[in-house]
Amino acid sequence: MGGIRWVGFDGDDTLWRSEDYYRAAEREFERVLGAYIDLGDRDTQRHLLGVERRNLRVFGYGAKGMTLSMVEAAIELTDARISAHDIHRIVEIGRATLQHPVELLDGIRAAVEAIAATHEIVLITKGDLFHQEAKIAQSGLADLFHRIEVVSEKDPPTYARVLRELGVDADGFAMIGNSLRSDIAPVLELGGWGVHMPYPLTWAHEAEHALNGDEARMLAVESAAQLPAALAEIEARLARG
Amino acid sequence: MGGIRWVGFDGDDTLWRSEDYYRAAEREFERVLGAYIDLGDRDTQRHLLGVERRNLRVFGYGAKGMTLSMVEAAIELTDARISAHDIHRIVEIGRATLQHPVELLDGIRAAVEAIAATHEIVLITKGDLFHQEAKIAQSGLADLFHRIEVVSEKDPPTYARVLRELGVDADGFAMIGNSLRSDIAPVLELGGWGVHMPYPLTWAHEAEHALNGDEARMLAVESAAQLPAALAEIEARLARG
Repeated sequence: MGGIRWVGFDGDDTLWRSEDYYRAAEREFERVLGAYIDLGDRDTQRHLLGVERRNLRVFGYGAKGMTLSMVEAAIELTDARISAHDIHRIVEIGRATLQHPVELLDGIRAAVEAIAATHEIVLITKGDLFHQEAKIAQSGLADLFHRIEVVSEKDPPTYARVLRELGVDADGFAMIGNSLRSDIAPVLELGGWGVHMPYPLTWAHEAEHALNGDEARMLAVESAAQLPAALAEIEARLARG
Repeated sequence: MGGIRWVGFDGDDTLWRSEDYYRAAEREFERVLGAYIDLGDRDTQRHLLGVERRNLRVFGYGAKGMTLSMVEAAIELTDARISAHDIHRIVEIGRATLQHPVELLDGIRAAVEAIAATHEIVLITKGDLFHQEAKIAQSGLADLFHRIEVVSEKDPPTYARVLRELGVDADGFAMIGNSLRSDIAPVLELGGWGVHMPYPLTWAHEAEHALNGDEARMLAVESAAQLPAALAEIEARLARG
C-alpha cells in the first residue's frame, strides 16, 4: 500500500525560533566592532558571512563555529587591534546564542500532535549535536517524535541514509521545513515530498537554492495550522497515483 | 538464541589516535601563554581543564568547545593582556586539531574486519558531529560498520537509546573502547559487556570512573589483535550461562 509512511520535521525556524537569535548575535557583534571601525565603511555582516562560509568545511554548522568565525572576523576587521576584553565579549555572545530560550512557533505543538496521530514522525535537524539536543529537550516535543536525527549537513546522501535507516522509500516520505535549500530541495531530488513553511528570516547561506517554485511534489503553507491539511493533500495526490 | 548480537566500537583512541593531538594542542597553548605569564607560577593545564569542565554543559565535548575554552582561559590567565594576534594563534591551534590526520591504531583494521565477519558492528563515538564524521570518512573504516552513531554524551540513557534502536538487549551487546568512564562503565551498568583496550594517554576528565577493576562482564586487552579472542571469551561465558 502507498501513502506517506514517515513525515520529517526540521527543527530551527520550523519547530522553534532560531534565526532571530543569530541575527541578534550579529547585531551584538557589530556593536563590539563599532569601537574600532567605522561600520559605515566596511560591510561587517558580509565579511562575517565570508569567514563563516570559508570555515564551514572545518567547523560545520552551528553556534560554536559561528563564535569562532566571529572571533576570527573581528581580528581581521580590526587589523588585530581588538582587545582581549572585547574578544571575550564576542565569546559571551556565542555562549548566549547557545543558551537562548526555546520558543515554539505558533500552533506547532498542535500540528505535530495531529500528524503524529496519523504518521510516524522524525525530527531531522542540522547543527551542533550538543546544542540541538539541548533545544530538543527544552522544546518539550521530544516524546512526540518516533525518531530524532541530528545531522551535520542536509544533502541528498544524508536524507538517503536516514530514509534507509527508517526503512522507507522516498516516495513515502514528506519533509516539513522552512529552508528550501536544506529541507525541500534534497528530498525532492530523491523523489520525496516537501512541505515548505517559510520563516520571516533566512540566513543568507540557506537562501541559495536551485528550486524554481513550481515543483510538483512541493506544497507551501503559511502557518503550522495548515500542515495537517497539506499532508492530506499529498496523500490525496498519492492516492490518485 | 543467546550470544553477542551487536559489538560497539569507540572511535577516538580506540580506532584512531586522538588524545595525542589534544595534548599537542595544550602544549602549543602553553607556548602562546609563555609570552605573558611565568608558566612555573600558574598551573595552566589545570586552569584550562577547569574552564573546559565549566563549559561542558554549554559547549559539549569536542575540539570547537576546547578552542573556545582555550580563548577564555588565555584571557583569564593573562588578565586580558593577551593580544588579538595571539588569540588568533589559539584559534589556529583549534583549527589544526580539527584537521589532524587520521591514523589508525596498530592492527585495528584487521580486528574490525574479523569482528564484522561474525557480528553486526556499530561505531559509537562522542564529540563534535562534523569533526567525528570527517574522521570516520578519513579512517577508511566507515563501510565496515553496519551503523554509526555520533552521540553528545556516553551515559547509560544514551547507550539505552542506541541499543533500543539496534533492537538488541544489553546482554547481547559488547562495547570495545579505551575509556572506562565512557565506553565500559555505562554499558556494564545496563547489563552489557565491555572490552577495555587502554590507550597510553587519557584526558583527565575521562580518567574519572567508578569501576574497581574486577567487573565480571569486563575483559581487558593490550592490543587490537587480542580483540577477536576477547569476544570469543565473552561468547563462551554467555554459552555457559
